[in-house]
Amino acid sequence: MSYNTFGHMFRVTTWGESHGPAIGCVVDGCPPRLKLTEADIQPWLDRRRPGQSKYTTQRQEADRVQILSGVFEGQTTGTPISLVIHNTDQRSRDYGDIAERYRPGHADVTYDRKYGIRDYRGGGRSSARETAMRVAAGAIARQVLGQGVRIRGALVQVGALGVDRARWDWDLVGDNPLFCPDPVMLGQWEDHLARIRKDGSSIGAVVEVVAEGVPAGLGAPIYGKLDSDLAMAFMSINAVKGVEIGDGFAAATLTGEENADPMRMRDGQLHFLSNHAGGILGGISTGQPIVARFAVKPTSSILTPVPSVTRSGGNVDVMTRGRHDPCVGIRAVPVGEAMMACVLADHLLRHRGQAGT
Amino acid sequence: MSYNTFGHMFRVTTWGESHGPAIGCVVDGCPPRLKLTEADIQPWLDRRRPGQSKYTTQRQEADRVQILSGVFEGQTTGTPISLVIHNTDQRSRDYGDIAERYRPGHADVTYDRKYGIRDYRGGGRSSARETAMRVAAGAIARQVLGQGVRIRGALVQVGALGVDRARWDWDLVGDNPLFCPDPVMLGQWEDHLARIRKDGSSIGAVVEVVAEGVPAGLGAPIYGKLDSDLAMAFMSINAVKGVEIGDGFAAATLTGEENADPMRMRDGQLHFLSNHAGGILGGISTGQPIVARFAVKPTSSILTPVPSVTRSGGNVDVMTRGRHDPCVGIRAVPVGEAMMACVLADHLLRHRGQAGT
Amino acid sequence: MSYNTFGHMFRVTTWGESHGPAIGCVVDGCPPRLKLTEADIQPWLDRRRPGQSKYTTQRQEADRVQILSGVFEGQTTGTPISLVIHNTDQRSRDYGDIAERYRPGHADVTYDRKYGIRDYRGGGRSSARETAMRVAAGAIARQVLGQGVRIRGALVQVGALGVDRARWDWDLVGDNPLFCPDPVMLGQWEDHLARIRKDGSSIGAVVEVVAEGVPAGLGAPIYGKLDSDLAMAFMSINAVKGVEIGDGFAAATLTGEENADPMRMRDGQLHFLSNHAGGILGGISTGQPIVARFAVKPTSSILTPVPSVTRSGGNVDVMTRGRHDPCVGIRAVPVGEAMMACVLADHLLRHRGQAGT
Amino acid sequence: MSYNTFGHMFRVTTWGESHGPAIGCVVDGCPPRLKLTEADIQPWLDRRRPGQSKYTTQRQEADRVQILSGVFEGQTTGTPISLVIHNTDQRSRDYGDIAERYRPGHADVTYDRKYGIRDYRGGGRSSARETAMRVAAGAIARQVLGQGVRIRGALVQVGALGVDRARWDWDLVGDNPLFCPDPVMLGQWEDHLARIRKDGSSIGAVVEVVAEGVPAGLGAPIYGKLDSDLAMAFMSINAVKGVEIGDGFAAATLTGEENADPMRMRDGQLHFLSNHAGGILGGISTGQPIVARFAVKPTSSILTPVPSVTRSGGNVDVMTRGRHDPCVGIRAVPVGEAMMACVLADHLLRHRGQAGT
Repeated sequence: MSYNTFGHMFRVTTWGESHGPAIGCVVDGCPPRLKLTEADIQPWLDRRRPGQSKYTTQRQEADRVQILSGVFEGQTTGTPISLVIHNTDQRSRDYGDIAERYRPGHADVTYDRKYGIRDYRGGGRSSARETAMRVAAGAIARQVLGQGVRIRGALVQVGALGVDRARWDWDLVGDNPLFCPDPVMLGQWEDHLARIRKDGSSIGAVVEVVAEGVPAGLGAPIYGKLDSDLAMAFMSINAVKGVEIGDGFAAATLTGEENADPMRMRDGQLHFLSNHAGGILGGISTGQPIVARFAVKPTSSILTPVPSVTRSGGNVDVMTRGRHDPCVGIRAVPVGEAMMACVLADHLLRHRGQAGT
Repeated sequence: MSYNTFGHMFRVTTWGESHGPAIGCVVDGCPPRLKLTEADIQPWLDRRRPGQSKYTTQRQEADRVQILSGVFEGQTTGTPISLVIHNTDQRSRDYGDIAERYRPGHADVTYDRKYGIRDYRGGGRSSARETAMRVAAGAIARQVLGQGVRIRGALVQVGALGVDRARWDWDLVGDNPLFCPDPVMLGQWEDHLARIRKDGSSIGAVVEVVAEGVPAGLGAPIYGKLDSDLAMAFMSINAVKGVEIGDGFAAATLTGEENADPMRMRDGQLHFLSNHAGGILGGISTGQPIVARFAVKPTSSILTPVPSVTRSGGNVDVMTRGRHDPCVGIRAVPVGEAMMACVLADHLLRHRGQAGT
Repeated sequence: MSYNTFGHMFRVTTWGESHGPAIGCVVDGCPPRLKLTEADIQPWLDRRRPGQSKYTTQRQEADRVQILSGVFEGQTTGTPISLVIHNTDQRSRDYGDIAERYRPGHADVTYDRKYGIRDYRGGGRSSARETAMRVAAGAIARQVLGQGVRIRGALVQVGALGVDRARWDWDLVGDNPLFCPDPVMLGQWEDHLARIRKDGSSIGAVVEVVAEGVPAGLGAPIYGKLDSDLAMAFMSINAVKGVEIGDGFAAATLTGEENADPMRMRDGQLHFLSNHAGGILGGISTGQPIVARFAVKPTSSILTPVPSVTRSGGNVDVMTRGRHDPCVGIRAVPVGEAMMACVLADHLLRHRGQAGT
Repeated sequence: MSYNTFGHMFRVTTWGESHGPAIGCVVDGCPPRLKLTEADIQPWLDRRRPGQSKYTTQRQEADRVQILSGVFEGQTTGTPISLVIHNTDQRSRDYGDIAERYRPGHADVTYDRKYGIRDYRGGGRSSARETAMRVAAGAIARQVLGQGVRIRGALVQVGALGVDRARWDWDLVGDNPLFCPDPVMLGQWEDHLARIRKDGSSIGAVVEVVAEGVPAGLGAPIYGKLDSDLAMAFMSINAVKGVEIGDGFAAATLTGEENADPMRMRDGQLHFLSNHAGGILGGISTGQPIVARFAVKPTSSILTPVPSVTRSGGNVDVMTRGRHDPCVGIRAVPVGEAMMACVLADHLLRHRGQAGT
């Protein structure tokens, strides 16, 4: 991975700023002769699209994706696939404030320290708008993985409110704008988020992504481990502060006996009797579901003034008005799924290259 | 990163198996004219060396490092630095069992599924012995970073027993074999580990690594973020199941107000009044201490038999005798420090390349 | 370099097909705060643009470049620069023939063998149209290199007709559509090319590119040599079959005495008394002009029928009508300059990263 | 490729200086379950070994290779293969002269300009001794390619004396220390080289490498072309100044009719009636033999004094005594074969990864 590219064999390069004319990506290394049209990508983008519920930003973007290259007569050709989404709702406004003041918790100050310049309009390159292209690339990655691999994400915690896994219902996830798998928790979250939103505050969240049907053998020692590539992929999503595989941090509290995943042969096939490992041993997939979670911090844009500084070195208190997600973790669900898809597609090709299967 | 190499400008490639003749690494891209002799590397290796306390494996290895290239008259030349450690305590024994039986929680089964072959002696390539070379490379990375950057690690949790940060004492960390910063907890851990060890069991742990003196501006959007590279680096360490930056998973429970890091000018310098972010905003260092943690699962090698399968497809119960760490998290402390050093050194060179400073 | 990306620190990824809606590129890793507008890129594209003389293809393309990201208020921001050129003269026609018949000397047959599918319209991805984006990226690379580095190319041979270096005139190069530096040869080439064109034939050529003002120290052993990166860069241009540095193949005929480049101090500075090496020793620039040449084969599209085969396995004779350059080497001159610029910019950043200067 | 690593899926990293304790390489990404022992590598090294004829350097090195990792019970395991050769004939001597004086035509001056330090003993890292590891890696690459791919090299020109292709005899190549395929030219070269050697002079040469049995479809547009990767690989060999594919520079003098490679179906298979292209079209292999040539400059170490400068800025005349090849092109033959093997192995794996076949 390097700056704005990730992946080795299935490589995604994204570009674009929040308030520039467009955002886009180039997907290189995609296998040839996969079915691909804009209709294979658009539904995934629609799930991430802003302005769909009162819990996410009210920015209105059609997020209509166009394929500019790499596809011929509805099939991939093996050449780079260029995707573009034109920005349509770059609300014209006075950026004087944001140009000069660093929003706490945002990348304003670090971009300026690093580059000595920044496109301050809407966060520029550091805006979560970039994640739309991850979702688009993820849709292509799903075509690479094929029908046999199913990748699904859900929100499992909002603030201190975590779901009850006994009530987990994947069908519910697709039916509510919060990607909540627990019917009881759904109502509690709605109430909680309504309060948060009314207060001009924000709240953190945890996202879980599960990939089923992943063949054993993907991932590679030592610095090409499937879990380390997933950790990088999830941590690269805006506002993510932690990543777990399988039992994750809870594994720190377990004994070897509690953490063990016993194996048994059944009908001539190897079966694991539990999945504390999250489907990965030694950096390589076991054939079990890959289970990962990541923590998303609360949106830094809040209505409470926070002490900050100006570009020219003065003190100022910053209150961020604008169109923001009170819980940016919600829209991170489809983004997390996309990153899982991209990492798995990359490893599928890498494994096939080295091991020939 | 690719298979057995990590880093872009400061690149580390490791090789070697637990019970082969030697392990080694090649560090490429190191700046020229840095002071470097074996004496700059050996002390760091000694901190990770097995057989130093009753809480870690009793394997006896001198872990004596040799520099084979890239250094001339005590200075780096800019050409690849080859390091080697000869294995001396590959205890001769009958490997019949381990060749045929998959140890639960180990990479035995996944290496076999991936490659159709594995060097089963002591775990082969998947052994934590590989981490010695990370520590060696980390010592070189520290030379790249210079005196101004201080990287220190500590064990902050063993099982459910976490340290009290009010009692944190960095001096203590260097004085006890558990890298414990809390004098009260140290005693409790010793008791707990003694019990675990006596029971032939094992326990998980959490490691914290802090880097002070890191200049603002290291790291790069979007897929070259400092935190995503750290996440990959830590997750690539054996037995690690989770990674956090700053408040990490706790950030999921916070509101935007609670999570905010206010800024103020002081003596013409920008100061942050708190560090929930762990020293990184938008993937770029803020100039504050970089704070990261990772969770290490309990050693899978335990004396309790666990259901498993054989290579040829039979059922078997596996009990792992041998020389193992009851808490593999302990020796992960110097490894975590080394990975932090390597990631920072890489980003220092990458930043200097792009931005010229 | 990987598929459609080249460079390490200064990375260029191109995309697009000859007859798709657009072609484009993403330039990643560009230093911040460089002056850049479309006006800095367009003039270089205009030099390569088709339809400018009777010796090059009559396809009419405005080749109007747009910057979609990475530039703010006329300066680069350090984030990826996305450039796009919309195709306007994709002449609507029946592609039935070309879809089924492999044009000899073209990539039709190999793309099909590799991918099992190809965008046959105008050669698709294998069209030299892709080189427009190299020229655009090269314009950005020139900004990275700054005013001190001057990169110029010329055509030095058309068929068997080579220029006389005693008559070399750089000013002339900019004044004629053949990029010819020799006023006598210019007339001969015009006559020769007129004949070639009238016959529906084509002819090969040799291009020379010279970079002056390149500081000593760029390039790196062993697989990052400046000359091997140049060799790759030039060989990747459509129709190129050979690359030379300095004396090139002529060096094979020389003795050590003849090939030596003596050195002397002059005014406290090191001076070379000759430049057989072409400005590179051991893969690293000497501070002398970098001199490289590459051979371009004759355009494969000719009016004489050539035995070929069809996709479905029949024999056929193929005569290629259409809008083609009788000497594709002519338009390779600005492309060669651009590749030189990109390689040097990449090495400038890589060197600065490692060596700090 | 980056500094001391080349290849993407089949990656070779070399290290070591001419007069250090050892040289070595790490081959990463090698497919598992290939037969490999030191006996598969040693014979190729023996062909390159110095001290074998009066036409090559008299340095005596056994060049005995050891495998330190990545192989288990005679088979590759998919983990990194570490190879080492201990230097035995680092003749102890006074290096005072060479430390201070820049040898013309060598990398002494550029290493110093780049790094501000150099290991001057025997050329350090810039010595052609590094190529031994290329040959070793090439032997592994041959195992990856399998029996179906045959890679052979020959010397085709020494000074102005080129072989007559009508007399080409591959069997002869293996029987003479000059790798000469032409029985008549062999005698002439021997005489010529004897004279050159007696005069303390040196002479350039051209090497040709041919790979037969390469399947169609290897290589990839646009910056992963098989020919551009070959150009980089050959140009990275010490003293190489030019690279050609197929007709190479001669293609510049041809018309489209002369350069065309007609195709015909024969027994249901596509056949090319000539091979001007050298087996590559659009950067992708055609299934024909891959034909490449590279020019090697005369050894810069000669007995005639050449004007030079000292490190501290004085003028000096340098005459290079020592153990040198009068025609360094001779020993470049096995090196060229090895680079061809490595590039093809890499592209085989890359193609299999993307296209699945």
